[in-house]
Amino acid sequence: MGEFDLINRYFKKPVRHADLGIGDDCALLSTAPGHQLAMSADMLVEGRHFLSTVQPHHLGHKALAVNLSDLAACGAKPKAFLLSLALPRADEVWLEGFSQGLFNLARQHDCELIGGDTTQGPLNIAITVLGEVPRGQALLRSGAKAGDDLYVSGTVGDARLALEAFRGQISLPEAVFLSARARMETPVPRVQLGMALRGIASAAADISDGLLGDLGHILKASGVGAHIEWPLATSLLGCSGLWTCPETLMQTCVLSGGDDYERVFTAAASRRDQVQAAALQAQTPVTRIGTITAQTGVNVVDARGQALRCTFASFDHFAAP
Amino acid sequence: MGEFDLINRYFKKPVRHADLGIGDDCALLSTAPGHQLAMSADMLVEGRHFLSTVQPHHLGHKALAVNLSDLAACGAKPKAFLLSLALPRADEVWLEGFSQGLFNLARQHDCELIGGDTTQGPLNIAITVLGEVPRGQALLRSGAKAGDDLYVSGTVGDARLALEAFRGQISLPEAVFLSARARMETPVPRVQLGMALRGIASAAADISDGLLGDLGHILKASGVGAHIEWPLATSLLGCSGLWTCPETLMQTCVLSGGDDYERVFTAAASRRDQVQAAALQAQTPVTRIGTITAQTGVNVVDARGQALRCTFASFDHFAAP
Repeated sequence: MGEFDLINRYFKKPVRHADLGIGDDCALLSTAPGHQLAMSADMLVEGRHFLSTVQPHHLGHKALAVNLSDLAACGAKPKAFLLSLALPRADEVWLEGFSQGLFNLARQHDCELIGGDTTQGPLNIAITVLGEVPRGQALLRSGAKAGDDLYVSGTVGDARLALEAFRGQISLPEAVFLSARARMETPVPRVQLGMALRGIASAAADISDGLLGDLGHILKASGVGAHIEWPLATSLLGCSGLWTCPETLMQTCVLSGGDDYERVFTAAASRRDQVQAAALQAQTPVTRIGTITAQTGVNVVDARGQALRCTFASFDHFAAP
Repeated sequence: MGEFDLINRYFKKPVRHADLGIGDDCALLSTAPGHQLAMSADMLVEGRHFLSTVQPHHLGHKALAVNLSDLAACGAKPKAFLLSLALPRADEVWLEGFSQGLFNLARQHDCELIGGDTTQGPLNIAITVLGEVPRGQALLRSGAKAGDDLYVSGTVGDARLALEAFRGQISLPEAVFLSARARMETPVPRVQLGMALRGIASAAADISDGLLGDLGHILKASGVGAHIEWPLATSLLGCSGLWTCPETLMQTCVLSGGDDYERVFTAAASRRDQVQAAALQAQTPVTRIGTITAQTGVNVVDARGQALRCTFASFDHFAAP
């Protein structure tokens, strides 16, 4: 199978949004009047972002999901994506699974593949995703204000729990492991919630490197701090209904887990009803875990108002080990 | 140096075209009224697209140049790009050189970095480039007609010549090697020519996998064939002024060399003056090498009208060795 056969067989699909898709030197796309194009790029490397044990269709799903999650963080509607793929070899079973997982998720979000590149090399998946947002309505990191409520969507910490189990650091009951593993391998991009929060949230960010780390981006961009009530956040671990997670492990997973692809966002306290209506509309639970403060820094307190004593680092690809 | 320090130090620059650049979950970009967005993605892998001996600043140049060349093939004006970079480690000398080469070329074409990703992994450079083209004026592969002239821009074959020398297959005089190596390592994207050919060329394609292979994309998309007069094409090898290249090697390099990033394009014979005016305006030589034919297939003939007997394969990343 040659390079062009490979593209035609697994990746070339008719386009509906784009003016021109795969098959020329460039793809062509028009933006709707009054809209801005939102775009983001994420690269997945074996051993860093996924384990060699992952099923190809899960990997196809995840590669697009983490990119859609960035669009969702800005409240953009997905439109199209470009895929650059380095493969050790043209393995048909792998390509079949990978492309199925990729396109199943793409169809769910009406997001079409319009271009990219295929080459031989160590397995590497680089996607650039493009979406649309009405001009001026993108959710940015810079809009949080003192007094705003602080929210997290869905569940966080499970992917880290699965990773710790894969690494042999902890042992989990099978049902808990399977639930956590599914969160790690097939994250759900919160696209509907992102769009529903336009005009309601004051700031938003993707949670990919850990809740506190990504909240930190909002706080830095907005020049504010946060007060988090840990008891409100303990329900964020998805598998907590199946199992009692040791307290320290739960704090690590929830507060600095990484690989969650949920939303951390802020909204004025006067908008609580609107936030809940948006969550209902998007069929995505949101949990209020604290408040934005004028004082910078993050304060996480327990039920007695005492600061948690752990320190939490967010993920950094080039941090000293 | 952590991930965010690395981004801030080497890659974060103020943006002028984009509404929002690096620093949020997405970049935001608006398209001018009456324009389409043209975009393309190319991934460079060590050992496939560049040798480990390449200088980092040449690599930075080339990574962007090959992407700009795709925009140029469509006649689009460069606007912005996203860079996803997998690095074995945060090497400051490498990053300094790479980013300088990248931004020097970006500045020349007024094309700004607006987002991307940085991760640890085997060296891999994935760029998505975005440009603008007036609606309906993009140069496509599908517009060639029987009777059209067939042109090639600049010089082709030198990169292949350098590669053969690097591989030890041939030995070159030093001045020839240096000239060929420069063409391999710092290709010049023909952006101005692409824009100047809007409304003049009937079809165009980037030459990246070899002249005949990339011409083949035009022929297939347009449902036509081509007649090439080899004596017209012998001047295409850039270093032919420095050195007499053996005939068979020249045919291989010029007709199926690869890594050229020049333009192959067609235009009605009635537009010869306009083609030359566009070439002059863009300060890029163009050479007429043949004619488009109704009969499909490619016929390359020598000075006596005899078909060349060599077969030429274009580069395919997954072809059987």
